[in-house]
Amino acid sequence: MPVRVLVPLADGFEEIEAVTIIDVLRRGGVDVTTASLGERSVRGAHGIIVSADATLDEAIAGDAYDAVVLPGGMPGAATLRDDSRVLAALRQVVDAGGTAAAICAAPIALEAAGLLTGRRATAYPSFRDQLVSASERSDARVVEDGPIVTSAGPGTALEFATALVARLVDGDTAAALRDGMLLGAR
Amino acid sequence: MPVRVLVPLADGFEEIEAVTIIDVLRRGGVDVTTASLGERSVRGAHGIIVSADATLDEAIAGDAYDAVVLPGGMPGAATLRDDSRVLAALRQVVDAGGTAAAICAAPIALEAAGLLTGRRATAYPSFRDQLVSASERSDARVVEDGPIVTSAGPGTALEFATALVARLVDGDTAAALRDGMLLGAR
Repeated sequence: MPVRVLVPLADGFEEIEAVTIIDVLRRGGVDVTTASLGERSVRGAHGIIVSADATLDEAIAGDAYDAVVLPGGMPGAATLRDDSRVLAALRQVVDAGGTAAAICAAPIALEAAGLLTGRRATAYPSFRDQLVSASERSDARVVEDGPIVTSAGPGTALEFATALVARLVDGDTAAALRDGMLLGAR
Repeated sequence: MPVRVLVPLADGFEEIEAVTIIDVLRRGGVDVTTASLGERSVRGAHGIIVSADATLDEAIAGDAYDAVVLPGGMPGAATLRDDSRVLAALRQVVDAGGTAAAICAAPIALEAAGLLTGRRATAYPSFRDQLVSASERSDARVVEDGPIVTSAGPGTALEFATALVARLVDGDTAAALRDGMLLGAR
């Protein structure tokens, strides 16, 4: 069984972050389902229109995921935070032993889901103050604490996505992807 | 007048590269037109479906561009290389004093357009041998030589896109974008 990941997309999603997550996880052999909150066509924060694989209602009907991963971008991240279905999917995946992950502005949805209590997390710098229940608001590029993975912004998206491959698939696959995509030394 | 950039998209385009180019140039204030070779809906190499702003025939009818920028990915880059309209657009923008740029596999289209003669260029490592007319096949992450800008792969896309902003807009705008997107030290 391949690893299954749900990536919800709301209008105003950050395109580099969303596409990097989807592309890299698929390179790693993960079965990624992108899901729109409403109609299948979703418009990013910089005007790029992506056709989601399914609506969120379709995507969460009966299927179990190993991880739910949220791209940032505004107003997309706020819309994710305000959608009760997204918050339920985040809580459900963690309750089932899976991973909830978010980058840039989107950790505000993890906060709203009540998943950051007592955990270290990061976000885009101007959004870190909103992670009020986190035990530490980190300035690291990627933070993993228990079931929660967070990252900071577009420039950290490849590190975030390959960290998710290392966690959900294995480290060798992630290392091969980093080499193959020419991430270079950091 | 804003700077105008054409980004042709063929089925099998590399999504991280295409979206990074479009997103970063738009963040820099550039007027980007994405153009599909056939129908407006284009499918990337990792299954992400993007709706282009226009067809290539629409996009090249009467409009002048300051740059034409090609994402990599296969078979997208080979399709770009084999499309006479794409090669004509590349030659025309260079003849008019503009920039022709390509990343990953797509420098093979610059080669086919006859634009690499006597110039340094790079590409994804396994495609560099195809740049037969270049004076030097570089292993740098981004190479600028005269009107030609080339880069290596998904992991260099942010550096490529911000180098294009520095060239087409200005260096301060590019530096602000690098900071704002959290590219970090390299």
